[in-house]
Amino acid sequence: MTTIEARRSAHQFDLGPARALVCRECGNEVPLAAEFACAECFGPLEVGYDFGKITRAEIEAGPRSIWRYRNLLPVPSDVQEHPNTDPGLTRLVKADRLAAALGVRKLWVKDDTGNPTHSFKDRVVAVALAAARQLGFTVLACPSTGNLANAVAAAAARAGWESVVLIPSSLERAKVLTTAVYDGALIAVDGNYDDVNRLATELAADHEDWAFVNVNVRPYYAEGSKTLGYEVAEQLGWRLPQQIVVPVASGSQLTKVDKAFRELGELDLVEPTPYRVFGAQATGCSPVAAAFQAGHDVIQPVKPDTIARSLAIGAPADGPYVLDTVRRTGGSVEHVSDEEVVDAIRLLARTEGIFAETAGGVTVATAKKLIESGQLDPDAETVLLITGDGLKTLDAVEDKIGPRATVPPSSAAVREALGL
Amino acid sequence: MTTIEARRSAHQFDLGPARALVCRECGNEVPLAAEFACAECFGPLEVGYDFGKITRAEIEAGPRSIWRYRNLLPVPSDVQEHPNTDPGLTRLVKADRLAAALGVRKLWVKDDTGNPTHSFKDRVVAVALAAARQLGFTVLACPSTGNLANAVAAAAARAGWESVVLIPSSLERAKVLTTAVYDGALIAVDGNYDDVNRLATELAADHEDWAFVNVNVRPYYAEGSKTLGYEVAEQLGWRLPQQIVVPVASGSQLTKVDKAFRELGELDLVEPTPYRVFGAQATGCSPVAAAFQAGHDVIQPVKPDTIARSLAIGAPADGPYVLDTVRRTGGSVEHVSDEEVVDAIRLLARTEGIFAETAGGVTVATAKKLIESGQLDPDAETVLLITGDGLKTLDAVEDKIGPRATVPPSSAAVREALGL
Ligand SMILES: Cc1ncc(COP(=O)(O)O)c(C=O)c1O
Ligand SMILES: Cc1ncc(COP(=O)(O)O)c(C=O)c1O
Ligand SMILES: [Zn+2]
Ligand SMILES: [Zn+2]
Repeated sequence: MTTIEARRSAHQFDLGPARALVCRECGNEVPLAAEFACAECFGPLEVGYDFGKITRAEIEAGPRSIWRYRNLLPVPSDVQEHPNTDPGLTRLVKADRLAAALGVRKLWVKDDTGNPTHSFKDRVVAVALAAARQLGFTVLACPSTGNLANAVAAAAARAGWESVVLIPSSLERAKVLTTAVYDGALIAVDGNYDDVNRLATELAADHEDWAFVNVNVRPYYAEGSKTLGYEVAEQLGWRLPQQIVVPVASGSQLTKVDKAFRELGELDLVEPTPYRVFGAQATGCSPVAAAFQAGHDVIQPVKPDTIARSLAIGAPADGPYVLDTVRRTGGSVEHVSDEEVVDAIRLLARTEGIFAETAGGVTVATAKKLIESGQLDPDAETVLLITGDGLKTLDAVEDKIGPRATVPPSSAAVREALGL
Repeated sequence: MTTIEARRSAHQFDLGPARALVCRECGNEVPLAAEFACAECFGPLEVGYDFGKITRAEIEAGPRSIWRYRNLLPVPSDVQEHPNTDPGLTRLVKADRLAAALGVRKLWVKDDTGNPTHSFKDRVVAVALAAARQLGFTVLACPSTGNLANAVAAAAARAGWESVVLIPSSLERAKVLTTAVYDGALIAVDGNYDDVNRLATELAADHEDWAFVNVNVRPYYAEGSKTLGYEVAEQLGWRLPQQIVVPVASGSQLTKVDKAFRELGELDLVEPTPYRVFGAQATGCSPVAAAFQAGHDVIQPVKPDTIARSLAIGAPADGPYVLDTVRRTGGSVEHVSDEEVVDAIRLLARTEGIFAETAGGVTVATAKKLIESGQLDPDAETVLLITGDGLKTLDAVEDKIGPRATVPPSSAAVREALGL
């Protein structure tokens, strides 16, 4: 037995309400462990829970971070006592000006750019780190399209862990630098995200103390996205929205927001009112939208080519479950062009003062398209998930925007530039 | 009477607990209005209050933004009913790893990068917008070293106001683009910040409906920085820290954090325990540190030359009051080199997973220097204000950091790059 195996078998893991890992395909249950694929059928494992009674009051009295939902997550009850980035509880913005521009009645923007490294990835990484600590790992690792790299490197630094982060060498400069600054082991790989992901799976098999958050710790990691759903509901005053638009890369986030809404209903924390879930992709990487529109159940992998690099996963692991979710709830998956993405980034900024990255542009542009095509009901309350920050994808907008004028320091020159 | 004068005289302003404007120099009081200089002595006007009874419980039950302190700010009681960016209540991070690196016992980092446009400027702009709306203005404007430009353009977009933003043409690319994206009138001026500031004062005199947040609305605007002090105290469990290090540009923020601490003590919201306030500047723009160290009461303006461009104000309006504050509380003002700034940005990132802009590097580097020189007591509880985001000043670090290696997509190549 290796040291780490000994450490792992020596004690029961405290992972809060988590009961077991359950195969999404065959329902096979295995004890909580550092596993991610079903030994029976190779299906993906997901965390199953025994929730006790959970009350709104208890949650509301909790910390101002995702840890207020710790009794709904696979994390130990003392999760706050170990250093973590404590993300979450970001703004839910009533977006009346964007609503008017899009022609809908009641619109909210969940602005996840306020997280520690400015994307929703801080949520999943925080949960992965807490679980990985319990599971006996000592290194935090990931393959990443960028945001995850930032979040993993930052969380590892905060915790005093080593990190190993693998990125495609073509990544945006901002995402490279804001990962490198945390001083973990950042490795650029000549290849696209799907190549990097394959490499991570290989490395995870050989390095048993490396927690690749989205590979061998994925069942725990993925649960972190549920907190987006919990927060939306709590911030609406413990209600579910009628429609929600979610960007899709691997598809994990979309399925977990749905899971969160269902759990809240089952736990009597909200009334289980109907809601529809919509997926958003960039045309240059839209395998899930293509499958949805063709009525298929399997996803045909694609080679990504889009400015929305954080969504550029050509072989999305949770694609089939996205299809299940949108079909079950009466939603759909749409895709938008890179030009529409840039226009939508600018529209959101101009109307609500929120500067989103390309993934946010995909969400807003998709919402626009869904409204125009009648798929989104303009009279139903709608939430858009803005999951990443415009500062990380400046290249996408830089050719289109800039100062109106450069003038000498005189008030006459300023007035002239303003046409006054 | 012009339209705007008519509008202004037509009704009493609802500015919450604000009672009058008070001259900092001669104590002269004038009614609340869009004024910023004393008619008697040209001294700066500051907001004076009649606070009623304010309780901790009332604040704690308030919104998760600076508006929980609305009864301590010059804003109307219905401030939340108008669109604003709702900043604040950012993380106070217990920084044990940074503390160990610096050799102090109890250290906290106030991470203001979580604000809507990722700097503390969202706080002051939110208050300025709320007051400006009451005062009858219709355009939000500013001269800026960058962060303020972002915050003003975003807040105006959110509110549906026009904005006029003046910046030095040499500004960092990230700060230019993240202002331009909100689609207000952004004008680059060939000159440094002090030139741009002069230009704004001229324009404010001619355009009576333009609220230059840090010029003609400055008394209200500046109060927004008090919220940093309130939050630190509330997040410490309604206690004052023993020491706090604050970056200094105009010096406003430092004096307002002190004002907040004093008010909390006077209102019995905290025990009025002693605290020392320290100012942090970059050597390339350190007029306040120079005056402090020379024992002078007046500030000799300088021509800034530092990578900490957000702090590059060579003629700091509130410099003399910074001197008063640090002398009264037993603190000091120190300055650090650009190289120390970059090292400190990296130190903070490596130890706490927080990526600060150059201003944050100035704060951390100054804290280090103050500890090494024995000015900061290593046994006293200390707070560092990290007021801006590293994503906006990537240029400062980009030559020093990057991937450890770029490799082909093979696990052997990764292991080799990691020396395994
Ligand atoms: C900003 C942003 N939004 C959304 C996503 C999609 O996440 P998922 O892989 O869970 O579909 C990603 C994934 O990297 C992302 O970076
Ligand atoms: C990030 C940051 N920190 C601190 C300051 C200092 O503010 P003050 O002018 O109130 O001293 C500024 C001013 O622009 C800033 O941008
Ligand atoms: Zn199975
Ligand atoms: Zn006076």
